[in-house]
Amino acid sequence: MAVCVFCEVIAGRRPGVFLHRDSEVVAFMDRYPIDDGHSLVVPVEHHERLTDMDPASVGAVFGRVPGLARAILAGTGADAFNVAQNNGWAAKQVVPHVHVHIIPRFSGRSTVWTSRKITDIPGLEKTAARIRACM
Amino acid sequence: MAVCVFCEVIAGRRPGVFLHRDSEVVAFMDRYPIDDGHSLVVPVEHHERLTDMDPASVGAVFGRVPGLARAILAGTGADAFNVAQNNGWAAKQVVPHVHVHIIPRFSGRSTVWTSRKITDIPGLEKTAARIRACM
Repeated sequence: MAVCVFCEVIAGRRPGVFLHRDSEVVAFMDRYPIDDGHSLVVPVEHHERLTDMDPASVGAVFGRVPGLARAILAGTGADAFNVAQNNGWAAKQVVPHVHVHIIPRFSGRSTVWTSRKITDIPGLEKTAARIRACM
Repeated sequence: MAVCVFCEVIAGRRPGVFLHRDSEVVAFMDRYPIDDGHSLVVPVEHHERLTDMDPASVGAVFGRVPGLARAILAGTGADAFNVAQNNGWAAKQVVPHVHVHIIPRFSGRSTVWTSRKITDIPGLEKTAARIRACM
């Protein structure tokens, strides 16, 4: 089986800028953000699709979203946010490990879904620090 | 306060094509689907944004998604799906009552996010019946 990039991030074998970590769920910054503060909420256990998970585990993952979203909005100054979770190639799922996108949105800015790769890791760390300060 | 269209659908004062109903959560067909079988999972209690809800209630809503998504895929022949939930005007939230979109996706079809209004209610009822048969 191919190595799962998110399992590697969770295990600390690849770099990740974390916002949250508990026994069931982690949250880290998306390296390909659609806008500033774009974060991922991810079950620690590897599952490819939401339909591979039991309702309680799905509830645990999404139950972390309101608190994280409040901190992301407070930390970035966004006034709105999208929650998105893609399952399967035809739904544009790229990494085959369940992940929930929290995408901050800002009035007056574009709401396109185009992402860019972040190479400025210190900048990403700074955004994460501002978010963590609001948790 | 303006009347909430989803509270009206839940109360039966506006028409809705339902897939599921329990004391906390309902699911009905989206009248402006992005693709066939596009459905909404909605808390019975009125909240405008996910950040207005407590984690357990959010978990209850999203905990219904895997079972519904399995039935929607089986009933429509879709092989993938998006889960999406928008909060605030800048995130393109239209109805100010929390709702989770389950959008079936089909290999080989477009994955645009454009919706169309359904006027063929019997057709929508037929799709819903095929989905309910898979629950």
